[in-house]
Amino acid sequence: MDYDKVFDAAIDNLKTEGRYREFADIRRKCGQFPDAEHFSPSGEARPIKVWCSNDYLGMGQHPTVIEAMHEALDIAGAGSGGTRNISGTTHYHVELERELADLHGKQSALLFTSGYVANEATLSTLARLLPGCVMFSDAKNHASMIEGIRQGVKYQSKHGAAKHVWRHNDLEHLEQLLASYDRDTPKVIAFESVYSMDGDIAPIGEICALARQYNALTYLDEVHAVGLYGARGGGIAERDGVMDQVDIIEGTLAKGFGLMGGYIAANANIVDAIRSYAPGFIFTTSMAPVIAAGALASVRHLKTSQTEREMHQQRAATLKAKLKQAGLPVMDNPSHIVPIMVGDPVVCKQLTDALMERYGIYVQPINYPTVPMGTERIRLTPGPMHSDADMEALIDALNTLWAEMDLRRAAA
Amino acid sequence: MDYDKVFDAAIDNLKTEGRYREFADIRRKCGQFPDAEHFSPSGEARPIKVWCSNDYLGMGQHPTVIEAMHEALDIAGAGSGGTRNISGTTHYHVELERELADLHGKQSALLFTSGYVANEATLSTLARLLPGCVMFSDAKNHASMIEGIRQGVKYQSKHGAAKHVWRHNDLEHLEQLLASYDRDTPKVIAFESVYSMDGDIAPIGEICALARQYNALTYLDEVHAVGLYGARGGGIAERDGVMDQVDIIEGTLAKGFGLMGGYIAANANIVDAIRSYAPGFIFTTSMAPVIAAGALASVRHLKTSQTEREMHQQRAATLKAKLKQAGLPVMDNPSHIVPIMVGDPVVCKQLTDALMERYGIYVQPINYPTVPMGTERIRLTPGPMHSDADMEALIDALNTLWAEMDLRRAAA
Repeated sequence: MDYDKVFDAAIDNLKTEGRYREFADIRRKCGQFPDAEHFSPSGEARPIKVWCSNDYLGMGQHPTVIEAMHEALDIAGAGSGGTRNISGTTHYHVELERELADLHGKQSALLFTSGYVANEATLSTLARLLPGCVMFSDAKNHASMIEGIRQGVKYQSKHGAAKHVWRHNDLEHLEQLLASYDRDTPKVIAFESVYSMDGDIAPIGEICALARQYNALTYLDEVHAVGLYGARGGGIAERDGVMDQVDIIEGTLAKGFGLMGGYIAANANIVDAIRSYAPGFIFTTSMAPVIAAGALASVRHLKTSQTEREMHQQRAATLKAKLKQAGLPVMDNPSHIVPIMVGDPVVCKQLTDALMERYGIYVQPINYPTVPMGTERIRLTPGPMHSDADMEALIDALNTLWAEMDLRRAAA
Repeated sequence: MDYDKVFDAAIDNLKTEGRYREFADIRRKCGQFPDAEHFSPSGEARPIKVWCSNDYLGMGQHPTVIEAMHEALDIAGAGSGGTRNISGTTHYHVELERELADLHGKQSALLFTSGYVANEATLSTLARLLPGCVMFSDAKNHASMIEGIRQGVKYQSKHGAAKHVWRHNDLEHLEQLLASYDRDTPKVIAFESVYSMDGDIAPIGEICALARQYNALTYLDEVHAVGLYGARGGGIAERDGVMDQVDIIEGTLAKGFGLMGGYIAANANIVDAIRSYAPGFIFTTSMAPVIAAGALASVRHLKTSQTEREMHQQRAATLKAKLKQAGLPVMDNPSHIVPIMVGDPVVCKQLTDALMERYGIYVQPINYPTVPMGTERIRLTPGPMHSDADMEALIDALNTLWAEMDLRRAAA
């Protein structure tokens, strides 16, 4: 057994397939988003524009958020110092959970160190608490949901637990699968509102109606929607007027709200059961008070301010229109996400390398396993801070590279 | 299927067994640790002393750390805005990983959102990368290691993967298990340096010698030791002069370093493989730059300053001596951790409730599943900030309650 050989081979495989990931070393400029600096391996910095951040609204530089964080640092210090149970529940956590429960119209909310952990811990624990539970998972669900479901089902496999993947957003297929179980079998339907790589949106109300009909719980991931949609930033379920029909809403503090961390909101007994049984919640240091304080300020701000949401939608629509006009193969969708299809991992990386090196435009190539092979793309995330001039510079650069690299244009 | 009934019953079980957890709502006072405020459900605050924080050295209030965080907030803003691959690698992350690799004398290091995720993601991914891998797990390993090992082994169960739990710190038992496999079977020995609830310490050098003899990789969790032991805070492996013999060292930024987040340090090819294959690393927003900046300042400070480490050991030794003198059943061990045995979950909670209500002394009861049933305890974490007067107040309160509640004293 030569361990080095195994690890070296695992890395070489990725390089051969053109999907070895190199991380861009950057530092955004607070107050000047999307402006940032890009550091070379030797530590020299040059200016760039970031076009691929999930800090969709720029809340990561909002003065109210920054001020709340400075204040919390001076009041309470750096880390929390413990798990939630052992000295790590600060007043900021308590207030933030109340605020998030209110945001989604639920009795309770629960914070996790990340959205990934929220999905993994909640879904796996649901399966453990409901013996013989059958999980119905949308085919495009995020890796963290897939992991949580897999773990939960494996844990309970002796009790008849099972997993079914339903075709993406396909209500008929979902119903067909649900109908094959009797009412007494515990069931969880897990899905997202905005799918982050294609930008399409789930029919939440219809899925919840099926859930009621077949006696299933619903678990909705709104990470690419909270803060961005709904009159108070409650997400697509709020926008569609169906928040009360969803049993468990999962969200993140790391995208629209500009911080880090994840959460669920649900009935008090569900939240209390997850709180009490999920190892991924129990045995980990709670988020730093400074993060909770920033998130609290951000959630509160976006509950009343419409400016950021309106600008966000307007900027996304403008960019899509400009890209279409330029004949670039932008994927149509009803959300703020702007994917441009490339279809090859190596070309995708060459394209984004050239954007960075020649134009100081930072877009990360999106390759497998984040998207299926053959659907490699670049994914633009325009926000309130991207000006018309930024967009024109981007499109000029894309046009030049599209021609030089002889890439596929949109059908006329 | 009545979902409410299942969730209600799950919670009722915990209440019946006396191990339902209620979180204390507190806020530590930066600059005045261990002083903090305790909030009632109606939001009124009263002063308390915290005796159960894992911010062992008080780095969470160190001026250098706080200043670095204020600065990073103003330079780079709140959250990172993305996964490590998609705009979420900031210059702070790059510098911190370099600093941590250097701390442990390894080629590379990799940050995770928590120590829990570092253990879970790394151990499960190791098992996935090494087909038929056999995992040897110390019986007292942390929940996060157990989860990672379980997931990895289940994932690879068709390829002959297996898990063996060796008796806690028992070299003979470990060797016996290792010897039952041939040299070509991939093997990982996973263990901790300081065990957090008993405070005993693993024979790291001897375990690594067995690993070499039987061709196994070693994975060492140093979360309760980094910052605290070794000339530069590299942990017990540094103190014992055996860092170079351990293949993978896992640590946390949330205890000795006073922030949040976890990491591994190892050879470059191991780190690169985990970086490239672990879903729990790939698909999650990176830690906020403000956290990375604070951790960087903390790690750098503790590489050169001995003051905090020396005071920490001195304070722990003083408290242990005082407790023994008072006839309280403190568990002997060679580390900074101070467990006092109670042996019953309900009594343990009554004791800590009385400490908080009557004396403003905050100690969390440690019950199952954090420790085995019947070994319930309180666990004190004295630090550089706890004065002799604090200790005397604590011991007076314990003595009074021990008499009132007729608790078992130490053998004379």
